[in-house]
Amino acid sequence: MSFEIRKIDHIGIAVKSLDEAVELYRKLGFEVKDIEEVPEQKVRVAMLPAGESKIELLEATSPESAIAKHVEKRGEGIQHIAINVSNIEEAIENAKRNGLQVIDEKPRIGAGGKKVAFVHPKSTKGVLLEFVEG
Amino acid sequence: MSFEIRKIDHIGIAVKSLDEAVELYRKLGFEVKDIEEVPEQKVRVAMLPAGESKIELLEATSPESAIAKHVEKRGEGIQHIAINVSNIEEAIENAKRNGLQVIDEKPRIGAGGKKVAFVHPKSTKGVLLEFVEG
Repeated sequence: MSFEIRKIDHIGIAVKSLDEAVELYRKLGFEVKDIEEVPEQKVRVAMLPAGESKIELLEATSPESAIAKHVEKRGEGIQHIAINVSNIEEAIENAKRNGLQVIDEKPRIGAGGKKVAFVHPKSTKGVLLEFVEG
Repeated sequence: MSFEIRKIDHIGIAVKSLDEAVELYRKLGFEVKDIEEVPEQKVRVAMLPAGESKIELLEATSPESAIAKHVEKRGEGIQHIAINVSNIEEAIENAKRNGLQVIDEKPRIGAGGKKVAFVHPKSTKGVLLEFVEG
């Protein structure tokens, strides 16, 4: 394999109200590091550090956002897992070579300017998986 | 706060067939470290390291298992997130003090002999959260 899995980059959790969710996670003992809007993905995001990983609380800013659709169909809850890899192009090629359905054939730029790509949950037993490099 | 959040301990994913899931995650680039049966929780578990965390693939060994119920109600997918804390008794007390509903009032012994306790997804916006110490 020409790439390595480095760590869990983050866990994405879809919520209806970011303010309420932030209050809840503070009660659980988390620190809220940063809240930002990501217009390309039509979300507001709160970042909660946990060791080398983060929990990302995601609130839709438009009904067309993937987060809005998740909340509508499945309710609030865990929406995706992001895996940090050493080489995202290789991770995508490897997934395709193994017959998995990727959403992004080529990496695109996500939050914080990092390269990201999603694998379709149809080919990963219901888990929306994101590769992140950097 | 008298405890610290140390890291994401693991992410628990409910699957129908552990053998199929293990094959899938190998294709995605994961190494399968260990497969064990945990009779108390009526599951077979495969551990996939990712940095300081793990992905745990969980297959029910009985229809009464929480994993069997999850698969029946919601299909395969992410079932819980486990957070490693410095002091689990304090983490439970803190959650209760803040009005959250805990499943385990006191820690019990989970996989690998570690102290674990669950918070009810009713009070965490649909996320089954586990505290782990050690």
